[in-house]
Amino acid sequence: MVRKLSTQPYKGSRDFYPEDMRARNYIFDIWRSVCKSYGYEEYDGPFLESFELYQAKSGEELVNEQLYSFVDRGNRRVAVRPEMTPTLARMVAAKYKALSFPVRWFSIPSLWRYEKPQRGRQREFFQLNVDILGVDEVLADFEIVSVAVSIMKRAGAKEGMFELRVNNRKLMDDFYKILNFSEEQKKEFNKALDKKSKISEDEFKKILTGRVGLNDGRLVEVNNLLNNPEQLLAKMLSEQSPGAKEVKSLLKLAEEQKIESFVKFDPTIIRGLAYYTGIVFEQFDLNPQNTRAMFGGGRYNDLVSIFIEDSIPATGFGMGDVTFWDFLISWNLAPNFDSDLDYFMTKLPQTNENATKEYYKITNLITEAIRNKNQTVMSWLDDNSKLDKQLKFADKRGAKKVIILGESEIAEGNITVKDMISKKQETLSLENFIKSL
Amino acid sequence: MVRKLSTQPYKGSRDFYPEDMRARNYIFDIWRSVCKSYGYEEYDGPFLESFELYQAKSGEELVNEQLYSFVDRGNRRVAVRPEMTPTLARMVAAKYKALSFPVRWFSIPSLWRYEKPQRGRQREFFQLNVDILGVDEVLADFEIVSVAVSIMKRAGAKEGMFELRVNNRKLMDDFYKILNFSEEQKKEFNKALDKKSKISEDEFKKILTGRVGLNDGRLVEVNNLLNNPEQLLAKMLSEQSPGAKEVKSLLKLAEEQKIESFVKFDPTIIRGLAYYTGIVFEQFDLNPQNTRAMFGGGRYNDLVSIFIEDSIPATGFGMGDVTFWDFLISWNLAPNFDSDLDYFMTKLPQTNENATKEYYKITNLITEAIRNKNQTVMSWLDDNSKLDKQLKFADKRGAKKVIILGESEIAEGNITVKDMISKKQETLSLENFIKSL
Repeated sequence: MVRKLSTQPYKGSRDFYPEDMRARNYIFDIWRSVCKSYGYEEYDGPFLESFELYQAKSGEELVNEQLYSFVDRGNRRVAVRPEMTPTLARMVAAKYKALSFPVRWFSIPSLWRYEKPQRGRQREFFQLNVDILGVDEVLADFEIVSVAVSIMKRAGAKEGMFELRVNNRKLMDDFYKILNFSEEQKKEFNKALDKKSKISEDEFKKILTGRVGLNDGRLVEVNNLLNNPEQLLAKMLSEQSPGAKEVKSLLKLAEEQKIESFVKFDPTIIRGLAYYTGIVFEQFDLNPQNTRAMFGGGRYNDLVSIFIEDSIPATGFGMGDVTFWDFLISWNLAPNFDSDLDYFMTKLPQTNENATKEYYKITNLITEAIRNKNQTVMSWLDDNSKLDKQLKFADKRGAKKVIILGESEIAEGNITVKDMISKKQETLSLENFIKSL
Repeated sequence: MVRKLSTQPYKGSRDFYPEDMRARNYIFDIWRSVCKSYGYEEYDGPFLESFELYQAKSGEELVNEQLYSFVDRGNRRVAVRPEMTPTLARMVAAKYKALSFPVRWFSIPSLWRYEKPQRGRQREFFQLNVDILGVDEVLADFEIVSVAVSIMKRAGAKEGMFELRVNNRKLMDDFYKILNFSEEQKKEFNKALDKKSKISEDEFKKILTGRVGLNDGRLVEVNNLLNNPEQLLAKMLSEQSPGAKEVKSLLKLAEEQKIESFVKFDPTIIRGLAYYTGIVFEQFDLNPQNTRAMFGGGRYNDLVSIFIEDSIPATGFGMGDVTFWDFLISWNLAPNFDSDLDYFMTKLPQTNENATKEYYKITNLITEAIRNKNQTVMSWLDDNSKLDKQLKFADKRGAKKVIILGESEIAEGNITVKDMISKKQETLSLENFIKSL
């Protein structure tokens, strides 16, 4: 016996059967329509990129542990894209003299990261990327936040189901200055913040007194400010921190534009990627059974400069399909997907050549008329199947109506239409059927 | 000075800027809507697959020369998918007991092959895959051909612009039996046929007398039949070749269903992939400046058996985006893509806090109303730009209308709408504007 190949997909990747694809397309349709409604244009880049594109700014963990990279037959070191922002920066840099800024673009790439597959995380996932390039104003960061909120609302999310937690890298740098942190301390402190939601209060404190090296007085002071974000923001505003001012402006815009209930300042939001320079944010699912970060984004004003001498300010976010779908499930917002098959066309055994010719002539007329009305019709593909078998298949496939064209119908110039929901059927002339579409 | 990174995409791959993406989406929309109108359901599989999936049946050239493959961090040998059919076969095999056959599925994967980039060929391309599994009848092969023809027609193609050239592997095997070909001769003859359209008549004859080893009498006989397909078909029908009967049935169906002008029998069509078992076809652009094969497909009844003991008959085709687009261009069928930006919302400098609040209040109402009507609106993101600058940008971005909301409009509860095509502008109340949407 010949050994059979495995039918499993590659570890951490997914097969999208038609029912999975309907869910995926439902998500993509929401993403696309909201982005377009804000005037964003869709783009895409290649699935393989040069390795050095990520080496520059994507951060150590991603490049050293998660990147899929290899050497091609022409001895180029290539990588399977793990994120879209470097591709976007490359594309904008390549044509920045011809583009009219601000550029507002979105894309839905598939991305790969070598990680342990678990709930909400796959090695292959799709990620909506929404970005504005060419504007260094909080208004742009706010619009990015608004698009994210609009997407959540379009999917049916209400107040209390999610929130966006906002911070600013510059605010934190100013805070670290006040604390007299060394570069090493900053790094360790950021790492600790990034972990904070996943570890206990005690573990967090241990890191602050240990690796970060805070004394007991400082620990109380710092921890107090982290637990009272308003106090920290007020303190940094009084210190004239530009990052604090940006956060304040963003919160004010949220209030003026009535989405303040979805937006909070949170100094523990840091974001792993190395290229952020200002406002950063993460969106959280507030479902008690599922509390966690869904996705994030922020400002990255220096990334395009890895390609060109000029610098182009930029801000944006990336939203993954896996966590988005988990959110819909956790709040019971995932819809049922109806069949999109309007008609099923039977094919009954014909006793003579002439009836076969007539069958095809009428079938052609009917199916063309149905398809011209943007409806869908599927034909049976076998000359010797009983009507029962065909009706069973049509039912399983979710056909709304079945068209029966037997020899008596053909002789009389009629067709019979069976409604698969009410189970009623009626016989009508070909002309009347086509008019009824 | 720091060395700057290249802005070029990886060799043989493409960046899709918004204008390119509109063309790509135009093609995908035609593909999707025609497939759906025939009752096909969309699926997708992962971008990376196990290497052995292609090793089995995809043919030497593809595996040894064109496949992107590498060893992952967990020591698995993986490949970037170069074609979709093995993934489809794997997915159907994995669930074949739960699926109701016939399965009619389509997908639009991106595929990679390490080839020399040239006109009509990129290393990365998108390919529509349309397949029927579970039916071993010519009716299924014919439906596959019909879907291809419908797609061409939906894109505006007319008679004389393209044709599908059909052959059958079984017919050719029977022909080779009559010629007493050895396995080696079959292989060399097939290779020669595959090249025939790219080489001269003389070169072709040289291969037949050389590598294939035909004597002069046989050469004349064989060449005569290849140049007179009807004769070859009649001969093989008189020899009771099952493959010839299938071709004959398919041509008859094409006649009965009025697409006979697009479908021809052509014994030189062989197809490179190793898994074909019956009817095969290739579609040709008939433009004299561009005569060549655009894409192809056929029957592959044994592929699913590399996974399971049962065999599942199957037939389908794959149509690439690059050749499809070249076809549209060569026949002047590519449309112009209009801007999809309905409104551009200006932001004029406000002199006081209250006007700013009012500006946002009204802007929120307007933009929400526009987006709720499935129209698109983009806002200006800067507090200090003159109207002129904003109008210029709106024009460049292709906005159909511009909304002006200055302090006088705010004070009077009005808005001014400028039509960017007629250049006329009118001032109307907020209520009337919203009603007008």
